[in-house]
Amino acid sequence: MPHIDITNDFPGIRGLFTYRPVTAAPLNALVQALLHNPHPSLTAGERELTATYVSNLNTCFYCTNIHGAIAKHQLGNDAETVKQVLANADTAPISDKMKALLKIAAKVQTGGKNVTEADVEFARGEGATDIEIHDTVLIAAAFCMYNRYVDGLATWQPDNDEMYDRMGEHRARTGYLTPPVIVSDIAPNPNK
Amino acid sequence: MPHIDITNDFPGIRGLFTYRPVTAAPLNALVQALLHNPHPSLTAGERELTATYVSNLNTCFYCTNIHGAIAKHQLGNDAETVKQVLANADTAPISDKMKALLKIAAKVQTGGKNVTEADVEFARGEGATDIEIHDTVLIAAAFCMYNRYVDGLATWQPDNDEMYDRMGEHRARTGYLTPPVIVSDIAPNPNK
Repeated sequence: MPHIDITNDFPGIRGLFTYRPVTAAPLNALVQALLHNPHPSLTAGERELTATYVSNLNTCFYCTNIHGAIAKHQLGNDAETVKQVLANADTAPISDKMKALLKIAAKVQTGGKNVTEADVEFARGEGATDIEIHDTVLIAAAFCMYNRYVDGLATWQPDNDEMYDRMGEHRARTGYLTPPVIVSDIAPNPNK
Repeated sequence: MPHIDITNDFPGIRGLFTYRPVTAAPLNALVQALLHNPHPSLTAGERELTATYVSNLNTCFYCTNIHGAIAKHQLGNDAETVKQVLANADTAPISDKMKALLKIAAKVQTGGKNVTEADVEFARGEGATDIEIHDTVLIAAAFCMYNRYVDGLATWQPDNDEMYDRMGEHRARTGYLTPPVIVSDIAPNPNK
């Protein structure tokens, strides 16, 4: 159960958002801008893959599962690509540009200074633009925040594929600024 | 020089904010809510100390120096407390509650799962409230993002105490939503 009394039953970051609305507003606006709003060149599915990939490197169960589900829906119900990116991004069915961007994301996860000029040049060689490199660094950095927030307060993180899939479909379709779907019918909070 | 062409001369995160306004808006709104806006019990100086402390653990030169300067001004021009917190928080002239909160912040910096129930109980024993514990975890997590963003794109980070002090006084007084002060008269960008 969470380290603090969040006085609601929502899982993961949604419980924290409901507990503390003054910080929820900019946190939701940030993820909406990074992952959901129209982008000059990266699809929402590609950006969700980066978020899922970094969350998995940070071993954040909730974020990996919810963003994995959102990625699946943004990619046209393609669960296999999400699975392969998490298993081995180098052999996954994604573009060489995306593979190069995920290499940068993995460096950011271990620390900003680990991104080298060579990493950036390699991504450019695969066709990445400055905006794509910028946004990939910021998505990776942002999920180093969201993952620590969710795990640092020990939020409730159900182990229920149907729940993540239903929440993921909702987020992929409506974005991050809509109220959460009620999932207690399929994943009741065991702490209650 | 930065990994990407940010087309402006502002140092650190301000250069990135000017380059990419769509993500700058929520990033500024978040730091304003976390560090500057009125808080039920933590002073702005205490919250800036947490941001400075985590930025130092992440060895982010720009963030440590700018938030150290903001903390100094929020604490009534008290540079000595900032210096002592960075040197050894356990013996610094801060409350036992703040020492316990900084222990939680240090755990978050290494990974969210490293925060234990015992860490939280210890902080409660020193008088920390649930909101204080929540906000400390989120400030620490957020600076794991800001630090990675600033270093992951290799921003210009001047080594000039007067510049950080002037920018810090400006931020402490006006908050995070005002335009940056122009510092090129004291710290010209060597990349130009």
